[in-house]
Amino acid sequence: MTQKKPTYVRPLDLKTGRIDMAHGAGGRASHQLIGEVFARAFANPLLAQGNDGTVLPAPAPGERLVVATDGHVISPLFFPGGDIGCLSVHGTVNDVAMTGARPLYLTASFILEEGFPLADLKRIAESMAAAAREAGVAVVAGDTKVVERGKGDGVFIATTGVGALPAGRDTGGANARPGDVVLVSGTIGDHGVAILSERESLSFETAIRSDTAALNGLVEAMFAAVPPAAIRVLRDPTRGGLATTLNEIAGQSGAGIELDESAIPVEPQVAAACELLGLDPLYLANEGKLIAIVAPELAEVVLDAMRAHPLGQRAARVGTVVEDANGFVRMRTQMGGQRVVDWLSGEPLPRIC
Amino acid sequence: MTQKKPTYVRPLDLKTGRIDMAHGAGGRASHQLIGEVFARAFANPLLAQGNDGTVLPAPAPGERLVVATDGHVISPLFFPGGDIGCLSVHGTVNDVAMTGARPLYLTASFILEEGFPLADLKRIAESMAAAAREAGVAVVAGDTKVVERGKGDGVFIATTGVGALPAGRDTGGANARPGDVVLVSGTIGDHGVAILSERESLSFETAIRSDTAALNGLVEAMFAAVPPAAIRVLRDPTRGGLATTLNEIAGQSGAGIELDESAIPVEPQVAAACELLGLDPLYLANEGKLIAIVAPELAEVVLDAMRAHPLGQRAARVGTVVEDANGFVRMRTQMGGQRVVDWLSGEPLPRIC
Repeated sequence: MTQKKPTYVRPLDLKTGRIDMAHGAGGRASHQLIGEVFARAFANPLLAQGNDGTVLPAPAPGERLVVATDGHVISPLFFPGGDIGCLSVHGTVNDVAMTGARPLYLTASFILEEGFPLADLKRIAESMAAAAREAGVAVVAGDTKVVERGKGDGVFIATTGVGALPAGRDTGGANARPGDVVLVSGTIGDHGVAILSERESLSFETAIRSDTAALNGLVEAMFAAVPPAAIRVLRDPTRGGLATTLNEIAGQSGAGIELDESAIPVEPQVAAACELLGLDPLYLANEGKLIAIVAPELAEVVLDAMRAHPLGQRAARVGTVVEDANGFVRMRTQMGGQRVVDWLSGEPLPRIC
Repeated sequence: MTQKKPTYVRPLDLKTGRIDMAHGAGGRASHQLIGEVFARAFANPLLAQGNDGTVLPAPAPGERLVVATDGHVISPLFFPGGDIGCLSVHGTVNDVAMTGARPLYLTASFILEEGFPLADLKRIAESMAAAAREAGVAVVAGDTKVVERGKGDGVFIATTGVGALPAGRDTGGANARPGDVVLVSGTIGDHGVAILSERESLSFETAIRSDTAALNGLVEAMFAAVPPAAIRVLRDPTRGGLATTLNEIAGQSGAGIELDESAIPVEPQVAAACELLGLDPLYLANEGKLIAIVAPELAEVVLDAMRAHPLGQRAARVGTVVEDANGFVRMRTQMGGQRVVDWLSGEPLPRIC
């Protein structure tokens, strides 16, 4: 872009400045915000095209496309282990990765509230950029809107991910078969407890941190270990938690799932916080965990591959797929009984992601 | 999906019901909302995959990908000529189409405010679905979040579009060359005036309607008429209007633009409303118009192709690209003078899209 006007434009005050309505009006102030905050944080040659749509290379021959989208309205915006910025990258990268695809590109739509501190926006943009770099994806297109004070809540971020799906991978929720093994990549409930404890200003002896992380590297490590058909289903148990996600899979596959309560990894501090708050970790959101349903004969191989990856060290075999046309999820409890694990209903945990 | 539970679930009350926090929690209520409102409106086999990411066919050989994203926060949600639903389709379809690509897929992220009427949400979803059908794109993935009353404003919609770009098309803002001709596809300012008049509760003798429309058909008609290299730049003058968009192009191309005020099509009612409201139609948003910068020797052929299309009947030649390394946009006024047409600055028109 040529130096267009000799006029002196004062740089944004990124220390004490705030978003005003002009930042969303599409004129000079919008361009300045985009240039000094977003373009600087996300800098890459694709984004630098500077047009309303971004032209991307086609996927390699034989690869299909994958898209996923996710809106992020988490409160608070900053929490132990992360913030809305990295979360908005992880959430969408993971939705793409759960199809077996390699996430490549992200778009980001920001809805900002008038008065939001520019310093916080910069911190969020930099957190997104770091998360995108770490996950190996480029933020290639964006949009910024501003709403009046009291018509939003700081910042909402909707991200959309585009990935390339290698031939032979099919990890949709309908592929679980009786006999398959249910794996989970680590401890559950960490994200939900981290957010709730921050929100309720609870102080636990050891702070629990969100598990927010991009899972595409873990997924590639799993596919590197076994033929693709052995990995039947991948899904990340976010809103609604492990319980709701397994119910979705059971419903889509027309099969039941039997869980072993004692095998489900839960951090002691998470268990203690759940006791205190009256919550069940099975229903708490996770942002850096995946469920894999795999062929029984290769379950141990997949599990070893998961455990060898930094994000799967506490991976565990937690259950089995069984014949059940009604698609119930049941759990053998630590007391030796059995109970039905239903979908999340009743009191919701709002704005957890 | 198998019929999972024998439990009787009461259908949503789509007449008098309202969004509550549970609709965003990812459990049973979320699934019901998605099923009864969004999946019903957008029904297509890709969306029906029902996984977090959606698998799409690869583009044809030789085609590149295009993505664009846009957040929609327009107020009011319903306005003469459209609503946030169709606008959220048109806005993103047009951003994809302005690269010369054929828009194929859309994703939609909804941020709903607690208490929002389900009847309005259904009407918006149906408007989106109709606009998508008309534009020939499928809504293939979505997400729904709910924020507390007073933390949003009814509904915000972020859409992302994916398209396929045929070889040989390159319509980025940096391609204007001195001598090229500037075309606009019709009257300017209609959308801005429609929104402002609704917002200010002004009553004009004849109601002005938003021009919101999908422009991909018009773009294809233009490419059908001339070799692709003749169409140098395409851009839709949304926020910031014709003036700001031409300044962007001039800056990207490192060339000046000379406009002829008398040639710029403006509806008399729009001109009158602008007089009344103290606005300049050059800075008002359009949602169904495009600017084309074209090779001079084929300008008339492109113009004829535009005029033969329902969305280009009032297309006009409004200016010329000139040598000017500073990238100024100048206008010969109807009084015979000349003035610089600057970027939008000063008082913004908030939430116009």
